[in-house]
Amino acid sequence: MQYRERRNKLAEKIGEGLILISGNDEAPMNYKDNYYPFRQDSTFLYLCGISQPGLALIIDAGTGKTILFGEEMTTDDMVWTGPQPSLRDLADKALIDDVKPYSSIREYLHDQQKEVCFLPPYRGDNVLKIANWLGIRSAEVMNGASERLVDAIIALREIKDEDEIKEMEDAVNISAEMHIEAMKIAREGMTEADVMAHIKKIALAKGKGTAYPPIVTRNGEILHNHHYDSVLKKGDLLLIDSGAQNKNFYAGDITRTFPIADEFTQKQKEIYSIVLKANKECISAAKEGVSNLSLHLKSARIIVEGLSSLGIMKGDADEAVASGAHALFMPHGLGHQIGIDVHDMEDLGEDRVGYDQEIKRNKQFGLKSLRLGKKLKEGMVITVEPGIYFIPGLIEIWKNDQMFTEFINYDKLNEYLDFGGIRIEDNVLIEKDGQRILGKPIPKEIKDIEKLR
Amino acid sequence: MQYRERRNKLAEKIGEGLILISGNDEAPMNYKDNYYPFRQDSTFLYLCGISQPGLALIIDAGTGKTILFGEEMTTDDMVWTGPQPSLRDLADKALIDDVKPYSSIREYLHDQQKEVCFLPPYRGDNVLKIANWLGIRSAEVMNGASERLVDAIIALREIKDEDEIKEMEDAVNISAEMHIEAMKIAREGMTEADVMAHIKKIALAKGKGTAYPPIVTRNGEILHNHHYDSVLKKGDLLLIDSGAQNKNFYAGDITRTFPIADEFTQKQKEIYSIVLKANKECISAAKEGVSNLSLHLKSARIIVEGLSSLGIMKGDADEAVASGAHALFMPHGLGHQIGIDVHDMEDLGEDRVGYDQEIKRNKQFGLKSLRLGKKLKEGMVITVEPGIYFIPGLIEIWKNDQMFTEFINYDKLNEYLDFGGIRIEDNVLIEKDGQRILGKPIPKEIKDIEKLR
Repeated sequence: MQYRERRNKLAEKIGEGLILISGNDEAPMNYKDNYYPFRQDSTFLYLCGISQPGLALIIDAGTGKTILFGEEMTTDDMVWTGPQPSLRDLADKALIDDVKPYSSIREYLHDQQKEVCFLPPYRGDNVLKIANWLGIRSAEVMNGASERLVDAIIALREIKDEDEIKEMEDAVNISAEMHIEAMKIAREGMTEADVMAHIKKIALAKGKGTAYPPIVTRNGEILHNHHYDSVLKKGDLLLIDSGAQNKNFYAGDITRTFPIADEFTQKQKEIYSIVLKANKECISAAKEGVSNLSLHLKSARIIVEGLSSLGIMKGDADEAVASGAHALFMPHGLGHQIGIDVHDMEDLGEDRVGYDQEIKRNKQFGLKSLRLGKKLKEGMVITVEPGIYFIPGLIEIWKNDQMFTEFINYDKLNEYLDFGGIRIEDNVLIEKDGQRILGKPIPKEIKDIEKLR
Repeated sequence: MQYRERRNKLAEKIGEGLILISGNDEAPMNYKDNYYPFRQDSTFLYLCGISQPGLALIIDAGTGKTILFGEEMTTDDMVWTGPQPSLRDLADKALIDDVKPYSSIREYLHDQQKEVCFLPPYRGDNVLKIANWLGIRSAEVMNGASERLVDAIIALREIKDEDEIKEMEDAVNISAEMHIEAMKIAREGMTEADVMAHIKKIALAKGKGTAYPPIVTRNGEILHNHHYDSVLKKGDLLLIDSGAQNKNFYAGDITRTFPIADEFTQKQKEIYSIVLKANKECISAAKEGVSNLSLHLKSARIIVEGLSSLGIMKGDADEAVASGAHALFMPHGLGHQIGIDVHDMEDLGEDRVGYDQEIKRNKQFGLKSLRLGKKLKEGMVITVEPGIYFIPGLIEIWKNDQMFTEFINYDKLNEYLDFGGIRIEDNVLIEKDGQRILGKPIPKEIKDIEKLR
């Protein structure tokens, strides 16, 4: 049973005291009882797999003994939600030793007289709960998370076991269906919302919905575009960045970009081919011991070389990459870890998850947005998602400031101001001497995409 | 411009001091930056219509002068989200007098030296924000909302103006499409999730998604069933309680129940006809001055009479209703107000919205779940949603306790243990001498439903 093993390993790493893992509650939308679809905390899921609000886990690090805190169902609850398993039934499935009432957490923690460590809460409700349980102020909770606990959880969760790899293949496979469906049905005259609703339907029917708000846009140059109002036009590229959450809440995170017309234009083909080259070569280079920073820089170099061959960039490629000039076209990072969270463990701190003593985050524009810089390890799953974007607002600022005129040909760039953006993203399992793209193939070669249009 | 008028009316009602209306922020799902679809606070929408995170309104009740607090976009923001309107542009659309930086709220409130009133926060993040702005403890925020402000907002929002009625018709019309589509496509062998995904797609494409988590279930007797795992079978009734949120965030809330087979069975027809009678007669009786409590009791009486004619209930109908025996079959209330929230203004307190000095909430099982008891007024919009459910777990408890044996024929009831549940719900505008069902007709007569199957 992997849950007990995980808790035991965690207890061992911490050594003594109490580990408090608060589950999530329902997240109110516009009033308390009208909530968003429930999403359990990912570390809570990792340690016991129970997806239900109103629960907390306390693990005694000295003994490994675990208690599940929650409330039993009342007759009234039964009328509203139907028969539900008892707390003991839930605990049994995860091999949890003991159960206690949720209302007794504060008293229990007080009586134990042991040091309590907890994770950084990312929801206000959890801040308020932990403050109440520990009898401390909200500000102390927001600044009082245990760094040792954070590091121990990261060390465990960043190496995926076999069960997890299966879940992640499943999530990617549902995501694959979403993207293939979109390639088949997106047509001139539809809105982005139409296409988004189509793929969301698949994520809802086959999994637990999408792992993050889908990006479905003819304006791929807007990196986090969560609006879906535009009508698709013949000459457009449609960029879709969307992944399913499978039944056990593991995430897929896939991006494809394709033409609304039956075929790519020559100009679209040229830019697309550069991005595809970066995607494929960076994936091929990924393996244990290689840093993700080096892969990011590799993608930057491929983009500089490609754009130079089109006359958009110029000069020495290595110098251009070192200066950060390419970030005008790819201002984001090459990728991040993925698992139960789409940006895996981001609640524990981006830098703690993605960097270490050896490789620190660089503050340069572009590099500062790279979530994962450190060396890859066998068992990690990462995204590889290079892109090229023509962002009119940013180009204007850089041009006016005459930024990097030795590397950027602003005159030529004028021809691309309405181009949009392209990104191609896959989910990749790191192995000892190589890597494997998770899930069944999702068309990304130009000819394979055109076949589906 | 209705926003300024609304703010002026509110200021007049409060008289002096500062009215602080906190907008909502993004609601984190599993880490800070992976959030649920943004939903603005409904009172914030009512007073200025701006649907964007990171905003707050302060209205000076003495002068009516309003300030919008927020942050301007940075170049980095522009890269991630595309060009956005300035704070001043947003304020102009809502005729707001002044704009100031979000970070200056605390200082502004401190400098003004005026009493500050705020609404009860239903999200932990808002508790923490208000505590910080006012320099008070979280507990003081949770217990410190202004009752005068709450009552003033309710008095304004519960009477819908012409613009609002149009929005609500629109929300019901999208909801109508969802229900009609479901009646057309639901078939034996599909999962509830398949049907749910179909109707959610319509809500996403035509509006801003669903106004609340849809209920799509062959187990209609589970009142708040948000699981969609069951496979639809030939003899099932499918209960769908689902409404769209239109582009301006007004809610529809519609329930229909129909057979998975082409036609209702005789038994299904009999129970359905009772619920339909309750739905139609309670709607016909609704008008200004009639209490919703009396409509609820009217539906109870129709249900008792109907079930008595089938031999499931017995005895004097008035006494049965007075005793609460019918609540075994309809444990919920007849309806509630609806507007920008599906349970309109529920964040301000169910009792404050639904009851008053004249009519107080009754604690009897069934009646205690009636959200709206007070007299109806012209311009209110309410739901009318009677139902009959056969809840095996509840029937077992009542039977074992020999509850109301003078009114319930438990032997006959045995024949209905696997029946499920039926609810029929419409959204109704209250007028001076009558009422009007909002939106285009959604089939509810047996013959009209069977035509679509």
